[in-house]
Amino acid sequence: MIESQTDLDRMFHALSDRSRRGMIDRLGRGPASVTELAAPLAVALPTVLKHLQVLEESGLVLSAKAGRVRTYRLQKDALAAVERWVEQRKIQWTTTFDRLDQFLADEPETFSE
Amino acid sequence: MIESQTDLDRMFHALSDRSRRGMIDRLGRGPASVTELAAPLAVALPTVLKHLQVLEESGLVLSAKAGRVRTYRLQKDALAAVERWVEQRKIQWTTTFDRLDQFLADEPETFSE
Repeated sequence: MIESQTDLDRMFHALSDRSRRGMIDRLGRGPASVTELAAPLAVALPTVLKHLQVLEESGLVLSAKAGRVRTYRLQKDALAAVERWVEQRKIQWTTTFDRLDQFLADEPETFSE
Repeated sequence: MIESQTDLDRMFHALSDRSRRGMIDRLGRGPASVTELAAPLAVALPTVLKHLQVLEESGLVLSAKAGRVRTYRLQKDALAAVERWVEQRKIQWTTTFDRLDQFLADEPETFSE
């Protein structure tokens, strides 16, 4: 599967907030209701619901409603797209860094870490 | 190395924009000046500089100035933190999904993919 730029924008945006990463970690231990997901967070319910909306739109989590309770769980392949994106770059970069190491060995150090 | 929540916030935020991911891909082929990085983007220079600032603050890229030209390059272990974060979760989730599969095999399907 090839993710669109929009998919990647949404996914990385979803991961860029520690509350949302905390929700992902909670869901990594099993499905949870909004109440359970909100419990460890010191934020108001509308903020919790907004975080869950961002997570659901990113494709990282999904939800189902049974009666009045909405339960969230992780998509089974939730982080596969992140992994693929990193892996593709690492393959390309190995060559680049081999060349850069050669360049830096030949030239005076111009970059400070 | 353990990344702080702030490090992770910054890194995922840096990756959440397709222009910034494009710059990372360009730098994956070797160091580049601001002019070279701006060339493929249909945005104004201040926007380019803002993207580069976000990338540099995230620790994904670094820069050096020689005379009047600032050159950017990738941090050698740029995506290692993303990889580590994903890997830690995958290890935890394997257990969760084994349990969830068992749960779903025992119960009527309640989640729609």
